[in-house]
Amino acid sequence: MADGRWIDRVEELEDVFIKRLEDAVKIPSISAYPERRGDVFKMSEWVAAKLRAFGAEVSIKPLGKQEGTELELPPLVLGRYGRDPEKPTILVYSHYDVQPASIQDGWKYDPFVLTIEENGRLCGRGTSDDKGPLIGWINMIEAFQKAGTDVPANLVFCFEGMEESGSFGLREALEDEADKYFANVDALCITDVVWVSDEQISIPQGLRGVLFYILTITGANQDAHSGGFGGQISEPMTDMVNIMSSLVDSSGKILVPGLYDNVQPVTQEEYDSYNKLNISEDSLLGGTGGRNLHETLADTLISRWKKPSLSLHRIQNATPGEGASTSIPAKLLGKFSIRTVPNMKAQDIDKLVQRHIRERFDSLGSKNDLEINCVAAADWFYESADHWNYKAAIQATQNVWGVNPALTCEGGSIPIILDFKKILKKNVLLLPVGRPTDGAHSTNEKLDNSN
Amino acid sequence: MADGRWIDRVEELEDVFIKRLEDAVKIPSISAYPERRGDVFKMSEWVAAKLRAFGAEVSIKPLGKQEGTELELPPLVLGRYGRDPEKPTILVYSHYDVQPASIQDGWKYDPFVLTIEENGRLCGRGTSDDKGPLIGWINMIEAFQKAGTDVPANLVFCFEGMEESGSFGLREALEDEADKYFANVDALCITDVVWVSDEQISIPQGLRGVLFYILTITGANQDAHSGGFGGQISEPMTDMVNIMSSLVDSSGKILVPGLYDNVQPVTQEEYDSYNKLNISEDSLLGGTGGRNLHETLADTLISRWKKPSLSLHRIQNATPGEGASTSIPAKLLGKFSIRTVPNMKAQDIDKLVQRHIRERFDSLGSKNDLEINCVAAADWFYESADHWNYKAAIQATQNVWGVNPALTCEGGSIPIILDFKKILKKNVLLLPVGRPTDGAHSTNEKLDNSN
Repeated sequence: MADGRWIDRVEELEDVFIKRLEDAVKIPSISAYPERRGDVFKMSEWVAAKLRAFGAEVSIKPLGKQEGTELELPPLVLGRYGRDPEKPTILVYSHYDVQPASIQDGWKYDPFVLTIEENGRLCGRGTSDDKGPLIGWINMIEAFQKAGTDVPANLVFCFEGMEESGSFGLREALEDEADKYFANVDALCITDVVWVSDEQISIPQGLRGVLFYILTITGANQDAHSGGFGGQISEPMTDMVNIMSSLVDSSGKILVPGLYDNVQPVTQEEYDSYNKLNISEDSLLGGTGGRNLHETLADTLISRWKKPSLSLHRIQNATPGEGASTSIPAKLLGKFSIRTVPNMKAQDIDKLVQRHIRERFDSLGSKNDLEINCVAAADWFYESADHWNYKAAIQATQNVWGVNPALTCEGGSIPIILDFKKILKKNVLLLPVGRPTDGAHSTNEKLDNSN
Repeated sequence: MADGRWIDRVEELEDVFIKRLEDAVKIPSISAYPERRGDVFKMSEWVAAKLRAFGAEVSIKPLGKQEGTELELPPLVLGRYGRDPEKPTILVYSHYDVQPASIQDGWKYDPFVLTIEENGRLCGRGTSDDKGPLIGWINMIEAFQKAGTDVPANLVFCFEGMEESGSFGLREALEDEADKYFANVDALCITDVVWVSDEQISIPQGLRGVLFYILTITGANQDAHSGGFGGQISEPMTDMVNIMSSLVDSSGKILVPGLYDNVQPVTQEEYDSYNKLNISEDSLLGGTGGRNLHETLADTLISRWKKPSLSLHRIQNATPGEGASTSIPAKLLGKFSIRTVPNMKAQDIDKLVQRHIRERFDSLGSKNDLEINCVAAADWFYESADHWNYKAAIQATQNVWGVNPALTCEGGSIPIILDFKKILKKNVLLLPVGRPTDGAHSTNEKLDNSN
């Protein structure tokens, strides 16, 4: 059997691969639950053993205690397969922990028993996010070995056990290993993403960044009754809705002056290519039942991939023991966030936002106090598809699926990808294995057998 | 002893009166707790027995079951003292139930044991709201009897046991008895109010009305992630803050066109009299630490007594299982209320508000759906102080306290007072017995012995 193309071996190995996924799903490696921490460690050992079984060198990197607790963090499972100086060295990132799941949440099957549906769907927690894609790397090595072919790249593995719970310790470990374990890495490949739609095979080149704001407006020490005090005292809610209404309009246009100044224009080529993508209206709305602000497919995709957006999330009463329904809130938190795209600079945007809000507030002549805080920020991410790392992925997709993958973006932000990029300074490829309807953080998670 | 002025008897009877209040406080007649309903009934019997002891005819009016429950409502205790056709007949309303109270809430003493502080404060649940004032009527009869003087009016009592829990059944009972038990009533006296400040003896002539609104804006079936969908779909929060910001400005001015049209102007005489009231800045703000929008005392009082106000209460996510902090809410409830004053008409105001909001929403070109509902409405209340009922109260205050009471208003709304007015169509006097710092619905409720 040690001959032929590796891809032909995949079908022969199907049962082996499925059994492997079954074994992995069986271990409930939920990083969010302290009482499951043992299973996350067990999963790290399982992954290490599999890597070793196929000839990879494995190094377990402990990450110490979880801040503020006595809990040990699950280790990074580092691995190395191949050391050919002629080949490029690819760092592969994935994670072996999973989101919580319980049959009571509405799963059709026990989430920790792999169940195969007639249509070939492999159901179980972690099948898509991210045990399935992780095991894909091991399966690939096995297929190459069975085909008697060399894997065309040296692989460095970095498998994490806390991704679903804040990736504690990962950034420090990356900084620590940048010049050591990861010293000779030429490019990165991260499989923790999905296709743009169930119908459209794709490779995302970009992610939006995010700036998250909290506005605090204070007018009193405690909520007051609107009968007794309405009209007499200064009401924070009045200022809050006024400021918020000055940030964005009902068409989604951001009203902060200067905010669009550095947004990279969309090329006609991109526009045309987006209009040709195979994405149904349902996929576009992701089951939310939301109302699309845009007419064409391209405009819709551009609004989430290539344009900044500003969403008002909530206005929260910050007085402990929220008052009666007719109370005047004494102190409010207003939360909103801005998604950023190339080539916006977070620092500049923050200045524009702060200045705009301060000017608006000053114009109100309010007696309340205002605080503006940008409490979280992550940069946007964008890679050129001209890099060999992307070219290889496009070629591989053609080989396996017989089609050209669409080059897309994602509207969301993935901070750890930024960390990899910032610390290792190499091209990062986001290679989807699953589909958007896999239910990664939801019930009835599945991976289509074809994936 | 059966001679002299009745007022001289009050001091001699002090111990008897305090013992009576002690007995009443001991019965935890909390109408909010089903398991205390027995105590509310016990309290009704206690009140009936006291009335009978001083020669009143008593009639117990059962109110049936509490809607949606198997709980019996506590009865109205109706009473009649004196039937002299030469005298006016006054309907006296008070209630014998109390708010919940427990030492764990932070009371200095057991709330159901009357504790007398050195400064003469009578501490215990119900001392001010409303057992103290209710017992005041019984004490008054006793003092007149001991003084050998006739009470100068016929009294009809209407004592309720559900005031703190929605006054279930009261309105129907009033309608039922309007031409029967209450047929010959000439005027009403309600003691369930307090002075305008601790320092200022007062009689309120007016209460503001209220219109309570819920705006519902719907854009989707479920909350969406702002990374994936921000900029693409229509966001209800954007419309909500825009509409809300068009209702009122930071100086408290209502922006709905036409809203002030029928507001009765304040006379120079009222303005001057308000400026002379003895109300400290602390009393004015009621301990809220709020920031006063007005310079003079008169302007401050006018803003809550004589002017309408519009307060924005909250914006609530209406999607079950509120989403992540970066979500786009799919459906929102926006709550606000308008306090009304003479001579605003609720129906006209509602039309102005609905038209303004609908026009504003239409101008946004939004893809969301808007619903506007006025879910509660209570009229304002205002009585002329020229009526003999008020003149008698002013004279009585002069006799007891040696000063003229200030004629004031209250900013809040008391729906049951409106019911009495509407159904019995007689002059209603609101006669304060307690002070605003009595802590009527709070911990450490007290009544000053002087009151």
